Amino acid sequence: MKRIGIGIVGGGYMGKAHAVAMSAVGAVFDTPLRPVLEMVAASTPESAARYRDAFGFRQGTADWRDLVAAPEVEAVVIASPQATHRPIAEAAFALGKPVFCEKPLGASLSDARAMVAAARDSGCVNMVGFNYVRTPATQFARRLIAGGEIGDLVWFRGEHTEDFYADPAAPASWRTEGEANGTMGDLAPHMINAALALAGPITSVMAQIDTVHTDRGGVAVTNDDQAQMMCRFASGASGHLFFSRVAHGRKMGYAYEITGTKGAIRFDQEDQNALWLYRAEGPEAGRGFTKILTGPAHPDYAAFCQGPGHGTGYQDQIIIEARDFLAAIASGKAIWPTFEDGLAVSEIVAAARSSHAARAWTDLRSFQE
Amino acid sequence: MKRIGIGIVGGGYMGKAHAVAMSAVGAVFDTPLRPVLEMVAASTPESAARYRDAFGFRQGTADWRDLVAAPEVEAVVIASPQATHRPIAEAAFALGKPVFCEKPLGASLSDARAMVAAARDSGCVNMVGFNYVRTPATQFARRLIAGGEIGDLVWFRGEHTEDFYADPAAPASWRTEGEANGTMGDLAPHMINAALALAGPITSVMAQIDTVHTDRGGVAVTNDDQAQMMCRFASGASGHLFFSRVAHGRKMGYAYEITGTKGAIRFDQEDQNALWLYRAEGPEAGRGFTKILTGPAHPDYAAFCQGPGHGTGYQDQIIIEARDFLAAIASGKAIWPTFEDGLAVSEIVAAARSSHAARAWTDLRSFQE
Amino acid sequence: MKRIGIGIVGGGYMGKAHAVAMSAVGAVFDTPLRPVLEMVAASTPESAARYRDAFGFRQGTADWRDLVAAPEVEAVVIASPQATHRPIAEAAFALGKPVFCEKPLGASLSDARAMVAAARDSGCVNMVGFNYVRTPATQFARRLIAGGEIGDLVWFRGEHTEDFYADPAAPASWRTEGEANGTMGDLAPHMINAALALAGPITSVMAQIDTVHTDRGGVAVTNDDQAQMMCRFASGASGHLFFSRVAHGRKMGYAYEITGTKGAIRFDQEDQNALWLYRAEGPEAGRGFTKILTGPAHPDYAAFCQGPGHGTGYQDQIIIEARDFLAAIASGKAIWPTFEDGLAVSEIVAAARSSHAARAWTDLRSFQE
Amino acid sequence: MKRIGIGIVGGGYMGKAHAVAMSAVGAVFDTPLRPVLEMVAASTPESAARYRDAFGFRQGTADWRDLVAAPEVEAVVIASPQATHRPIAEAAFALGKPVFCEKPLGASLSDARAMVAAARDSGCVNMVGFNYVRTPATQFARRLIAGGEIGDLVWFRGEHTEDFYADPAAPASWRTEGEANGTMGDLAPHMINAALALAGPITSVMAQIDTVHTDRGGVAVTNDDQAQMMCRFASGASGHLFFSRVAHGRKMGYAYEITGTKGAIRFDQEDQNALWLYRAEGPEAGRGFTKILTGPAHPDYAAFCQGPGHGTGYQDQIIIEARDFLAAIASGKAIWPTFEDGLAVSEIVAAARSSHAARAWTDLRSFQE
Repeated sequence: MKRIGIGIVGGGYMGKAHAVAMSAVGAVFDTPLRPVLEMVAASTPESAARYRDAFGFRQGTADWRDLVAAPEVEAVVIASPQATHRPIAEAAFALGKPVFCEKPLGASLSDARAMVAAARDSGCVNMVGFNYVRTPATQFARRLIAGGEIGDLVWFRGEHTEDFYADPAAPASWRTEGEANGTMGDLAPHMINAALALAGPITSVMAQIDTVHTDRGGVAVTNDDQAQMMCRFASGASGHLFFSRVAHGRKMGYAYEITGTKGAIRFDQEDQNALWLYRAEGPEAGRGFTKILTGPAHPDYAAFCQGPGHGTGYQDQIIIEARDFLAAIASGKAIWPTFEDGLAVSEIVAAARSSHAARAWTDLRSFQE
Repeated sequence: MKRIGIGIVGGGYMGKAHAVAMSAVGAVFDTPLRPVLEMVAASTPESAARYRDAFGFRQGTADWRDLVAAPEVEAVVIASPQATHRPIAEAAFALGKPVFCEKPLGASLSDARAMVAAARDSGCVNMVGFNYVRTPATQFARRLIAGGEIGDLVWFRGEHTEDFYADPAAPASWRTEGEANGTMGDLAPHMINAALALAGPITSVMAQIDTVHTDRGGVAVTNDDQAQMMCRFASGASGHLFFSRVAHGRKMGYAYEITGTKGAIRFDQEDQNALWLYRAEGPEAGRGFTKILTGPAHPDYAAFCQGPGHGTGYQDQIIIEARDFLAAIASGKAIWPTFEDGLAVSEIVAAARSSHAARAWTDLRSFQE
Repeated sequence: MKRIGIGIVGGGYMGKAHAVAMSAVGAVFDTPLRPVLEMVAASTPESAARYRDAFGFRQGTADWRDLVAAPEVEAVVIASPQATHRPIAEAAFALGKPVFCEKPLGASLSDARAMVAAARDSGCVNMVGFNYVRTPATQFARRLIAGGEIGDLVWFRGEHTEDFYADPAAPASWRTEGEANGTMGDLAPHMINAALALAGPITSVMAQIDTVHTDRGGVAVTNDDQAQMMCRFASGASGHLFFSRVAHGRKMGYAYEITGTKGAIRFDQEDQNALWLYRAEGPEAGRGFTKILTGPAHPDYAAFCQGPGHGTGYQDQIIIEARDFLAAIASGKAIWPTFEDGLAVSEIVAAARSSHAARAWTDLRSFQE
Repeated sequence: MKRIGIGIVGGGYMGKAHAVAMSAVGAVFDTPLRPVLEMVAASTPESAARYRDAFGFRQGTADWRDLVAAPEVEAVVIASPQATHRPIAEAAFALGKPVFCEKPLGASLSDARAMVAAARDSGCVNMVGFNYVRTPATQFARRLIAGGEIGDLVWFRGEHTEDFYADPAAPASWRTEGEANGTMGDLAPHMINAALALAGPITSVMAQIDTVHTDRGGVAVTNDDQAQMMCRFASGASGHLFFSRVAHGRKMGYAYEITGTKGAIRFDQEDQNALWLYRAEGPEAGRGFTKILTGPAHPDYAAFCQGPGHGTGYQDQIIIEARDFLAAIASGKAIWPTFEDGLAVSEIVAAARSSHAARAWTDLRSFQE
């Protein structure tokens, strides 16, 4: 089987996840290419060497430019801080290399736009790491909606809530500094992408963005703790999105409730192997939400286990991403979500910030080129 | 024991509930007064006679004025259409009779204001029928919050969602006509009252109100199917409220999620005997939402059953209301929620309608006299 | 409407529940008779007077014989300790009065047999207080099974678990003395009755009965804390029943799981307004347990509330019993569950005790006359 | 890092799972050895070649003897039918190679005994594939119990229920033939192992084993569809185990409920990222089962994800097994569960079969050498 050299920029949380995924994907799926962990880039030679050994890369480097330039690196995975996404992607595209970029696409709307342009100009395969839409349950939800199973949508409620900064006594850190690391910058993109994937384009938003704890241990907090927005979809449906890093009790509150004219869907990532489906069919006495456990009958599940209800987890989503990235490279055809999809998310983030500042409904068209 | 003659205006859904409650309350609770079902008023002599016999009243009348005027009717329960609330209450107060009025207080903000004024001028006991805040679980939630158990509130999400009009093919009816019968008029008051009871005063709102199905069987729908509002509480917390009669799968979706700096609370009326409490205490490994089943340790439960987890239901909430109404009459002191509390809800409904029309954040002060 | 004088023996937990039920039932349901609370019997004149005033009886007595004999008492509800069930019932039947008896039918199998004989000889209406099978959810489950919705049964698992004696430091009391007050005597009858009602006759049992805490504060415990039995149904299905008063965390763990050849049903009284139904129908990808919230489409719900999902509670089950008892009296025809049904439960309790002693499978026929 | 050549016998369901696990484990965990997929053995040269290519092995063979004998295969994973477990393990041990064997240890009690003897004689590292006890939740449950958090155990209820043969019309197959492939042979070992791991040794059992559908499409079914057993633990606790392949609606019903004198634990593999813990502590009003979502604070979770609630899945359990097997090999010290633990399970299976045949309580000592 044809091999492909993979370079991963970043060896932290997401860098490791991608290294594991690239190690496992060939055995899990019938991939057209077999990935080889060629090089990892990190911030120091020491960390690069550590990641290389820990994850099984052939080489490590403290300079991502080396990684991008290395001929044996044939595809680049960007799992480094947001501000670095754009230059790395641009450099890779300039060399004709496919790029997988962690969400959000860039640290700003202008970065995202530039990255889409660079991708388009290069003709290279590109993809954004919105892993949560890859669970069998959410893929299945997407199919159900696309197939009209719950009719025309009338309402979408989504949230991405966690509690890692819920303790008011938690000290300031890099996470409490800079727009990109706040709730809108860091958590919102996942659920905005889900909203777009499940309910279609958003045409206007009305947002409220809050810093709940403005001071942490004497250090000023310069980004947001929680944010909400009402929105209108192109379909006419209305919706609400909520994001929080101070939501006590929520560990991975990536959840949505979608209502259509024929039924409804509910999902919560904290129980990611179940999808709740209501169909307005049959006798009233028998109606209710059905808790569907994912299994081989649902997208991408069977590769992980032949038995239903046995469950997939976080890491498996990244493996599915890796499968898609390799397939896109092999075919030369982009696979959703591409950089354009990432840009659509960035536009909404920008529109929400603008809406909050203006305290007014904001039309997305002002943020689309 | 001293007896008190009760007159109930209306014999439908809520009229029956109050008739049952007044029949049972004396045996359930140790009440200072024993209610006697004196008279029921309905729209025709036939229905009045039917309700009289079915529920065990001594008399029936087709004119609520007779009921209010009858000397043997010593307290009046209003369970008739919204537009009738004001004249009935005013007539009763004029005769010095205590009034229990179903929610919402009146059909409009001006009605609500007039009713508060009439109550105040008369010095009579008055109360509004926000029954859902009477469940042992929600009463307990209120105590937990008031006692600081989850710290300072940072977020409140509430909804009241049902699906009785979710079918697009359902024909028009009185429910699809007139502001008072729409979602904002009919469903919103319950959850707005809960928000105020649990999280304190709201200072501004930003609302979006939708008629999803504008035509039903060739008849124009003149009120709203779903509505949402973002809000700011006086405490600084932010929040979101959602109301819908087209929410497929939701039968009694009176639900809230409240986050504080020390914990969180979740509740859903569809499982009204459980309250979910998260406390940010103890080792991380042991934290999670605790599903607390209501029992004798919680407010008003023990009167219904000595065993925990045995459960109270819808009708029991009305019995608790009856107990409070009788206690208020006996003591001459108002018991929450009074007409003033009902007015606070009406102010928010009015502010939300105004916000929707203006597409702007709206300050509650403009709606408070 | 014709009135009927009710006498209730016992004013504690269940006596109160029946007093409330008799007060409310006429307003809740369209009953053929309107009950009047004539007399309550208690153990002392003081408690009798207290119950009389608290629950609204016309008279109180410290001797149940007075109650049974009083001409104005036209029907008798027995809610006193198990050992008193038989003499009270026999006395009432001797006077031709209908009897409602709290579960279990008698304190022993011979008591139960004598009570059935007395009922039969008198020709009087008789009924046993297995209230939990009266919830809309469990009535609906019974209909589903009878209607073949889940096919032929293959497995029944039931439990009745509570934790009121789970604390090893809890002191001894009347509850820890005597067979009748142990888990097999006190808790088991409810779920055994449910098993029979839902899955049909049991033909053999194999039981294990345990006293977990043999000493409480220096006092010997003379009855059982937990018990289990495997069983075989006449249908060929097998099953398991478990009972416990030491099951930490279980407050009202009356729960069952029933599997058939076409589907399955699950229920837990701690969430009594939901029934979970699995149907092996339609595409695999859409299958799962459907959480059906009870509503007007289910048995006896609509009388309590016109809206689905609003919920009934413990007290409402007793009201449903009262409705059935009154209907049986009016028609002169027994309504399930009769004393014969109560006897069937007593036979299983006796067989289980025998099986435990013999450490052997025990045939029910040995316990049936 | 030192490499170790892995040979896997079997390329089906479990063979693939182990191939994926060995591919990923080095990146997920800090392992002392880095596994290399040397050889896969299958039933034909074609399937061996297919597995080799699909999973990334260097070689494939149709004869497991070649695999065991190959010097580059330094450790053997047995994922082939039960009847082959013993000869493969014996051959590997004879060559001094560590063996990981899928559950159950052998196809019979005598096989299991022989395998334990062979392991002991060889001094080689050995381990059994009871993967479900490896979830972070169940590992945590084990720690909680061992740490006395729920006190002395009084009750253990476990089940392993699935519905892959629930349809009476499903045709016969190899699964409906032979003791080893029935419910007791195939499903029971997992939950028996969990019972032992969580609640300690079992001293006696009383079993009932059923073939529900004795004929499938005209072919006689020669093994069991469902089975139950009551049991007594050495601790004095009693318990119940249930196994079924005809449990409609259950997809992966590996579930347990454990009650102690100070609390209780509940778990269901269908929601494997949650453990429910009840502690009899603090005010009654605040007690309930806490739904703990697994996270980095729980065993082995952090290697998969730094965020709590993000979830692990089926495949991750196998990766944890691989980590333990490699650690055992590196240290030369057995890691639980060893072949001796597998034998303990086989003894209980044998005792249960004997109990069923004798319709009597059966002492485990008769099955222990």
